[in-house]
Amino acid sequence: MSRLVFKRFSSTVTIKSTPSKAHLHQPLPSSSLPSGYLLTGIHAGVKKKAGVLDVGIILSTSDRPTSAAACFTRNAFKAAPVVISEKVLAENVGRARAVVVNSGCANAKPTRFFPSNSSSTTSQTLVLSTGVIGQNLPISKILSAIRSQRDGKGSLANDFDAWERAAKAFMTTDTFPKLRARTFTINGGAGMIHPDMGPPSLGPLHATLLGCIMTDAAISPRSLQRALTYAVERSFNSITNGAAAEKNGAPLEEIDEETDKEGFEVFKKELTQFTIDLAKLVVRDGEGATKFVTVTVKGAPTYQDAHSIASRISTSASVKTALYGEDANWGRVLAATGSVPLSSPLHPDKVSVTFVPSDGTTPLPVLVNGEPEKDFEILVDLGGGEGAEVAQYWTCDFSYEYVRINGDYRS
Amino acid sequence: MSRLVFKRFSSTVTIKSTPSKAHLHQPLPSSSLPSGYLLTGIHAGVKKKAGVLDVGIILSTSDRPTSAAACFTRNAFKAAPVVISEKVLAENVGRARAVVVNSGCANAKPTRFFPSNSSSTTSQTLVLSTGVIGQNLPISKILSAIRSQRDGKGSLANDFDAWERAAKAFMTTDTFPKLRARTFTINGGAGMIHPDMGPPSLGPLHATLLGCIMTDAAISPRSLQRALTYAVERSFNSITNGAAAEKNGAPLEEIDEETDKEGFEVFKKELTQFTIDLAKLVVRDGEGATKFVTVTVKGAPTYQDAHSIASRISTSASVKTALYGEDANWGRVLAATGSVPLSSPLHPDKVSVTFVPSDGTTPLPVLVNGEPEKDFEILVDLGGGEGAEVAQYWTCDFSYEYVRINGDYRS
Repeated sequence: MSRLVFKRFSSTVTIKSTPSKAHLHQPLPSSSLPSGYLLTGIHAGVKKKAGVLDVGIILSTSDRPTSAAACFTRNAFKAAPVVISEKVLAENVGRARAVVVNSGCANAKPTRFFPSNSSSTTSQTLVLSTGVIGQNLPISKILSAIRSQRDGKGSLANDFDAWERAAKAFMTTDTFPKLRARTFTINGGAGMIHPDMGPPSLGPLHATLLGCIMTDAAISPRSLQRALTYAVERSFNSITNGAAAEKNGAPLEEIDEETDKEGFEVFKKELTQFTIDLAKLVVRDGEGATKFVTVTVKGAPTYQDAHSIASRISTSASVKTALYGEDANWGRVLAATGSVPLSSPLHPDKVSVTFVPSDGTTPLPVLVNGEPEKDFEILVDLGGGEGAEVAQYWTCDFSYEYVRINGDYRS
Repeated sequence: MSRLVFKRFSSTVTIKSTPSKAHLHQPLPSSSLPSGYLLTGIHAGVKKKAGVLDVGIILSTSDRPTSAAACFTRNAFKAAPVVISEKVLAENVGRARAVVVNSGCANAKPTRFFPSNSSSTTSQTLVLSTGVIGQNLPISKILSAIRSQRDGKGSLANDFDAWERAAKAFMTTDTFPKLRARTFTINGGAGMIHPDMGPPSLGPLHATLLGCIMTDAAISPRSLQRALTYAVERSFNSITNGAAAEKNGAPLEEIDEETDKEGFEVFKKELTQFTIDLAKLVVRDGEGATKFVTVTVKGAPTYQDAHSIASRISTSASVKTALYGEDANWGRVLAATGSVPLSSPLHPDKVSVTFVPSDGTTPLPVLVNGEPEKDFEILVDLGGGEGAEVAQYWTCDFSYEYVRINGDYRS
């Protein structure tokens, strides 16, 4: 890991290499894979380079459409696949049969952003696209790639290899496919959740992020949507704006919050913890990231106040460059904190800021002499005492690599 | 100007040198200097390096306190000099006799942030500090430097040299002293405005910025404050949070908005245009900046909506890195636009984004093949038509230099 060496007038800078994250991708045991799905990832040619997977297919093997829920971007500008998937979910009242994802082209052209014909789609397939904007989607390549998988001729399967191929088809600036499983028991049955994640673009507020979570827990459409909305607010919306799609494929009786409150709470809790784990994984793979930082704001009058401050600190360019420089610059944290309009005035004389390394060593030194990829926490206590609200955010630093990737890559 | 050469695995990047801005500092004719002031800049020893000016003194030569107005930070955390200067202005009902500024130490220590004794200051001197936070202000060095200027023994004067010394005492990461003059006629008399500006830190929302504007136009305290507040909202608050102090020192009858509405409007208009020119100068000297970009949002339902969108675009890390990469990435501009909560919904199908070079050449090429420091405008039209609101913001790009300076410098 080379150190920063900057010669002011020579225009040359030696940057710290971004640490490899390859170890974060590991095989999953087949017992953790949810049943009821067939998956694959293929090279359709959206991406130029031969063999690079750019289309993922996820099919439910159930003989009827299964519960599906999604959280879409809140941005006023929605790419075509978002508009279509919203319509598919609405027309099928929260059910679907398949997900098709492509990377390499976001299918976001000014003329396609807002399809003027709102005629019925008659589709039960959710579509997700990520990659370069402003280019036409090579739809014929994608369609012929999908056809090549029909009638048992393709590579659709339900083993780790198939899940991994599907996850790779989501990748853009990702340095590894995001693939995790979580197994839990619900009403005596087994529930498994399994995600594919999209690009880790962490530009404050403007990130695109795709994720699919599959489960074989039986749950009703509306309860699935409620659990997902709750989980996403506490996970992906605490790192970035994100979209996640999810479906279940079990033939059992469905859990619904009305008839089985306990089962629903278990599902919601498991899903929330799972999405938090995934959100953190996305931050770890942030473009050029060399640090993983948890920002905790406690003692706030409302959750929204705590969340707003955590967001402001986590997206502050001056805080993030100081993190890269391994400078425990509390003044910038305070400045970010003090700039947020709150529901009631801050008491500056009650506020404290602490830098906490995750390995339990003395607070400050981790930032001054810390190694790259050292995890730590910035803790801001607004002094509201017990019963006051807490929010957490996860962020990474701003590095030379961040500037290079984002100055270079068209997203 | 070297081009970007990045070798992915060698950890070496050749950066574009930040263009020199030395030509932006030029001598001012003595006829443009406002009368009624004595100034100097001295080396008190706040900054270690011998001879570097770190304390500036600006005295009114009037035999009574003159009108003074200020816009202070809105941040909940205020450094000691802000608290003191607010008190001086309040106790003297908008009048003062002197300004003392220091650079090198922001006089912002947790224990000094919130002076608990609110006893009277009995001072008529405004104080401004900028520089490193978290260190004690070497007050004895500053006091003895001030004493060395008394009884005609120092370098206090009212020539360009004196104004330039005072301006240099404001500098932190500035690459040149910010010193401009504007002459105008008001009620048949002459009004001159003359500023010293502080550091160009343009970290979104967390910048510190000091500025002093002196005039010899006679104006009442409350009208001066009203004109300054109006001007700052349209200038420094359209680049960053800023603080500005201002005073006048003329013995004539004072303009007041009640008794001389026309004179007041002339003053307000001149002051606003002057502060906009200064705000732009600060952006030009942004840390590591290679581009100067005007962000114009028009067709908005309210000024606040237009201002919020312009602010979001101007502070977006993904937009600013694309500007550095000379990539006319309209998708990131749209994403920033669509993420702002507005007073009424956006009509995505009416929105247009244009990249306009300031020299009148064809829009897009300036960004693709543009030279460093090429000026241009990002124009977002929300489609509200005539009568809709417009706001402007000024920003620069995010470069490797920005990361280096902000990862390195303790502010």
